[in-house]
Amino acid sequence: MMKVAKFGGSSVADASMIQKVAQIIRSDQDRKFIIVSAPGKRSKTDIKVTDLLVELGKKHEANEAVDDVKAKIIERFQTMINNLALSSAIVDDIKDTIDGVLYDESLKDNRLDSLKAMGEDSLAKVLSAYLQSLGEEATYINPRDAGIIVSDEPGNAQVLDESYEKIYRLRDHKGIMIIPGFFGFTKDQKLMTFPRGGSDITGAIIAAGIKADLYENFTDVDSVYCVNPNIVENPKEISELTYKEMRELSYAGFSVFQDEALIPAFKAKIPVCIKNTNNPEKEGTMIVSDRKNPITGTVVGIASDKGFLSLYVSKYLMNREIGFGKNLLQILVDEGISFEHAPSGIDDMSVIIRKDEFPKEKEQVVIKRIQEELDVDMVTVERDLAMIMLVGEGMNSTYGVASQSTQAFANASVNIEMINQGSSEVSVMFGIKEDELEKAVQSLYHVFFENKIKV
Amino acid sequence: MMKVAKFGGSSVADASMIQKVAQIIRSDQDRKFIIVSAPGKRSKTDIKVTDLLVELGKKHEANEAVDDVKAKIIERFQTMINNLALSSAIVDDIKDTIDGVLYDESLKDNRLDSLKAMGEDSLAKVLSAYLQSLGEEATYINPRDAGIIVSDEPGNAQVLDESYEKIYRLRDHKGIMIIPGFFGFTKDQKLMTFPRGGSDITGAIIAAGIKADLYENFTDVDSVYCVNPNIVENPKEISELTYKEMRELSYAGFSVFQDEALIPAFKAKIPVCIKNTNNPEKEGTMIVSDRKNPITGTVVGIASDKGFLSLYVSKYLMNREIGFGKNLLQILVDEGISFEHAPSGIDDMSVIIRKDEFPKEKEQVVIKRIQEELDVDMVTVERDLAMIMLVGEGMNSTYGVASQSTQAFANASVNIEMINQGSSEVSVMFGIKEDELEKAVQSLYHVFFENKIKV
Repeated sequence: MMKVAKFGGSSVADASMIQKVAQIIRSDQDRKFIIVSAPGKRSKTDIKVTDLLVELGKKHEANEAVDDVKAKIIERFQTMINNLALSSAIVDDIKDTIDGVLYDESLKDNRLDSLKAMGEDSLAKVLSAYLQSLGEEATYINPRDAGIIVSDEPGNAQVLDESYEKIYRLRDHKGIMIIPGFFGFTKDQKLMTFPRGGSDITGAIIAAGIKADLYENFTDVDSVYCVNPNIVENPKEISELTYKEMRELSYAGFSVFQDEALIPAFKAKIPVCIKNTNNPEKEGTMIVSDRKNPITGTVVGIASDKGFLSLYVSKYLMNREIGFGKNLLQILVDEGISFEHAPSGIDDMSVIIRKDEFPKEKEQVVIKRIQEELDVDMVTVERDLAMIMLVGEGMNSTYGVASQSTQAFANASVNIEMINQGSSEVSVMFGIKEDELEKAVQSLYHVFFENKIKV
Repeated sequence: MMKVAKFGGSSVADASMIQKVAQIIRSDQDRKFIIVSAPGKRSKTDIKVTDLLVELGKKHEANEAVDDVKAKIIERFQTMINNLALSSAIVDDIKDTIDGVLYDESLKDNRLDSLKAMGEDSLAKVLSAYLQSLGEEATYINPRDAGIIVSDEPGNAQVLDESYEKIYRLRDHKGIMIIPGFFGFTKDQKLMTFPRGGSDITGAIIAAGIKADLYENFTDVDSVYCVNPNIVENPKEISELTYKEMRELSYAGFSVFQDEALIPAFKAKIPVCIKNTNNPEKEGTMIVSDRKNPITGTVVGIASDKGFLSLYVSKYLMNREIGFGKNLLQILVDEGISFEHAPSGIDDMSVIIRKDEFPKEKEQVVIKRIQEELDVDMVTVERDLAMIMLVGEGMNSTYGVASQSTQAFANASVNIEMINQGSSEVSVMFGIKEDELEKAVQSLYHVFFENKIKV
């Protein structure tokens, strides 16, 4: 068995967390490939190391004094090392590396991106030294040496396929490998960071490259919940999810991690496990390609999000007009507006758009173009909509889910503005008014998770 | 009060029907503008006069003997006239007119279209003569003299706006006017027939032109039913419908008349009444622009139709791809395929298409183009779908309808393949498997019309 374990920012925020991480690694000899984030916040008012590094880079660029910020960064690692009883030589190495990035002339075009990656890089050094101090055979492995080759896009690097062959060779490496997350190197050796969810991406790439049996993603929650815990108190935990379900849940309000970060692992069909660094005995949530025991007709999760609007267009005899839908969507494409869904009736069509894609100033332009170019009878915009998604593979193959979910809305006296079922095989989507979201979700949770109704 | 009354083919099929029509006209002095169809079938095995005229035209064109067919046509009118005790001079006039069309050199490019209109034209002459014989002041008015000016499109004439001013002058005409339906004249005096529902179109044009208070559409049913009578026995009658509701009902399986024929009346906001020539005392169904007493949350009708298919396309991260939906629809437009609806999920999209728009040979081409041009993960076609529409203005503003309708499907053990609610303000659409249509519709009827549940 080969496992890749990734530890997020809160899991490596200070020495005591690093001790927990070390214990988790040592408790399972299959955990050979370790990916780390940069140290996160130790308290609500704390600053993440990566944010300090960004500040450092910006001040340096503006020719402002950088000593204070640099001292804060070094101090974070110095305190860790002291509390872990490690040699100060590691801090000297971290300091030299940061100075190297800060004053290297050849990095001047891409300095900020390289600096941003120093939190992960430094933490990987600390963790490997700590594991060594405990008698483990542990090695810090730079992403360059690991074989993570990426495109030349600072802050948005994409892994190149040729990486995987190189990474596969890591399987022959002895002992535990500690690899900093969040970055890779271009073919000509330039450091590039990944987009959002960067350390998760590194973990997924390594898992795919070494053909891991499991990719463990350690966070600060016990598992993925079946509903937003801000809406329902102590909601049920999900023990198993499929990739497809995860993808649909992530769409509307599930923020355990960026689901797109996991694409490399998904493509290689490697199971992903979400676990809690503070509670590693808990089983967590498994995310798999296919469910071992397919369950039909079950809702596995309820996702919800606010911040949508609906653009409604009606035109008599619309459905006789070949190309009307296409022309309407073309106007949105022209204006750079990404839409979510476009359900249509006989003589009308609604386009669901995220609010931030459709600011008030664009509204005027779009409405005017629709009126003039498409000669419609009516075009209106309804703001303040929320979307709720019921997710579960095979859910759509039973008639119970439709009737029970609509009953749940009726129970909560919530009017359904929109239902979109059948376009996805994994989910049903409901549109309602934003201010009714909480009671609707609570009612759905009650019906599908508390009553344990067999559907 | 000014009323326009239109009588369909079955209402003027023989002398006894014409007597009924005359009685209806005479029973209400507001019925001044009468539009007639050509005589329809008197029995199941009978041939419509218009079909005989088409046969006559085709034989003439092919230089075949026409005497037999012509004799059949003349005989239809001769029998009528005998039974109505009218002068044979009318039959001579009808015969001369038909011969005129048949042998006029100037008509050679458009002879068939002119011939097709002779059934309506002849019947209008018979009816006005009969009304005169009863002592009424009745006049046959040719559409040219009525002012119906149309575009130069044989079989697909569109009324020109300038007609309405001319038609308005008919208000000053004394007595009852009998106008043949189904055709008008171009500016250079060429006869052109309307598309399907031709006599209904003439009625709607005259009603709009004279600014009628009511357009009565006499057919052979007592009213519009709230559900297809072939699926539910003796269904409830609808006493009032709005134009919008009628339009949505017509879409899927309501065939009392072509709703598009009524457009001129709808645009002029003239109420339309559907009545039965054989039972004129019945109130019939009123179709109005706005309901006098708006009813919220009520389903007024259930329409249903078979013969749909769903084209399902899935692609990972589809919703991040601006223009995907538009590009998919563009392929359909290129191939000349008109689609009905295109609901979309996160990473998938379904396009609902009528089967006859998407023959098997086009399926290959379209699927290949989608695969190659859009690089999708999956594209499949599901045939044999039926659509059910619940129709009612204001229905969507209550939460009861959604839960009760889905419950009705569950009661009938029918799985809902698709729900499309919210794109139309007047209807909710469900997609199910064709072979489950009957039991689903029966269950919906039971819930919304038999139980009289207040929603």
